[in-house]
Amino acid sequence: MGELCIHSVLVTGANRGIGLGLVRHFLGMRNPPKWVFATCRDPRGQRAQDLQNVASNHANLVVIPLEVTDPTSIKAAAARVGEHVGGSGLNLLINNAGMVINNTLDDETPENMTQIYTTNTVGPLLLGQAFLPLLKKAAQGSPGSGLSCSKAAVINISSYGGSIKEVYLWDQIQAVSYRCSKAALNMLTKCQSLGYRAHGVLCAALHPGWVQTDMGDSVGNVAPLTVDASVRGMLKVLSSLSEKDTGTFLDWEGKVLPW
Amino acid sequence: MGELCIHSVLVTGANRGIGLGLVRHFLGMRNPPKWVFATCRDPRGQRAQDLQNVASNHANLVVIPLEVTDPTSIKAAAARVGEHVGGSGLNLLINNAGMVINNTLDDETPENMTQIYTTNTVGPLLLGQAFLPLLKKAAQGSPGSGLSCSKAAVINISSYGGSIKEVYLWDQIQAVSYRCSKAALNMLTKCQSLGYRAHGVLCAALHPGWVQTDMGDSVGNVAPLTVDASVRGMLKVLSSLSEKDTGTFLDWEGKVLPW
Repeated sequence: MGELCIHSVLVTGANRGIGLGLVRHFLGMRNPPKWVFATCRDPRGQRAQDLQNVASNHANLVVIPLEVTDPTSIKAAAARVGEHVGGSGLNLLINNAGMVINNTLDDETPENMTQIYTTNTVGPLLLGQAFLPLLKKAAQGSPGSGLSCSKAAVINISSYGGSIKEVYLWDQIQAVSYRCSKAALNMLTKCQSLGYRAHGVLCAALHPGWVQTDMGDSVGNVAPLTVDASVRGMLKVLSSLSEKDTGTFLDWEGKVLPW
Repeated sequence: MGELCIHSVLVTGANRGIGLGLVRHFLGMRNPPKWVFATCRDPRGQRAQDLQNVASNHANLVVIPLEVTDPTSIKAAAARVGEHVGGSGLNLLINNAGMVINNTLDDETPENMTQIYTTNTVGPLLLGQAFLPLLKKAAQGSPGSGLSCSKAAVINISSYGGSIKEVYLWDQIQAVSYRCSKAALNMLTKCQSLGYRAHGVLCAALHPGWVQTDMGDSVGNVAPLTVDASVRGMLKVLSSLSEKDTGTFLDWEGKVLPW
């Protein structure tokens, strides 16, 4: 199991939290990608200031506006990435953008259910569709057989909270809309793994842990895991994934989680 | 394991297919419910003719208009049911209404994703919320401890196609929007089982089999199972459910399915 060796990676929701942490770690690798694409809704806004500061020090970091619920925005982002990477395609798509509203079962609303599903589940579907041509190019251009993140992969940032078997932390956080969206995202990941395998694209769902971010802290007490520890663990997991792991649901330490 | 012994039951999507089959079997029981509520979007429409014919022969069958994506319609239906059952509440809510669009992974659209989620997942959430007071009344009025369908229950008609582990029949039917909605419905069922247990309400997800209905036939070859066989099996399963079965995912023969 070596370090990841990728030409290009795209991370959604990259202006803060886990997304920004992933970007920082990719840039800090001994053998960093030629292109790191960091997307967020409003790259010029106040909430993207940290990301812009990182970008000002790294010529291989490209910040791209992307609203994951808007097909037109997604297609425009895919076109911009295509202009940069050309024939070598995109190795790694990380669907990290997501949201949570901590409603209870009794006060969950149709509006929240739809909004959260659109961001957390439909977004990753549309990203997969839009970037598939670039992922295929990367797979075709990579040497060797079998699947890996260094070749071509879609990684969906899911949550143990989306495990139907466990319903992790129910007593503290009901968040039914979030749980339903993540269970559906796990199903999408499995469907993508079946549909994209023939194209040489690995697909997996990752639980980053309960991490000290705005989202992680919004749902209860202080989360136990730092962004740095979560991201370091996830990159190690990504570097270890092979053919047999496509379509699986793993945590930041590589442990297989129940659906 | 005896026959179900219920005072009242409500079935959504009851104008045809499995919903109509359930209504017919409830009416044909040796000890039929005092009230069978059959809901559909347009009870006066051509597609509800079979249901109306059944209603004309059964004074205990009440046909109620209900659009499962419309909170106002759901609340109006709950009020009408409340007028009929009064203090004895509703024993059994069967969320059967559902839809499928057989898109592939590549041509799935955000519009379909949202529409199918709204009908198949958000609908059962809203029905559970609106009918909870009547389900609680039924549970409180029933003798004995423990959970059962004869006391109070929410049964969500799910699908083996929503099993993330199996992705049943992927090679024949991709239907990503449907699979995601049913995985999410399974999560909702688990959440309802945890939230409603203290109120004395059992919750379970049922796979009716691949049944000869408009929906079952729309997605491929002729389905192998008759409505009659599916419904007979499901009613037997319902009659057997107890405390230990709340939050489970079972098929029409009572077999536990993987999430």
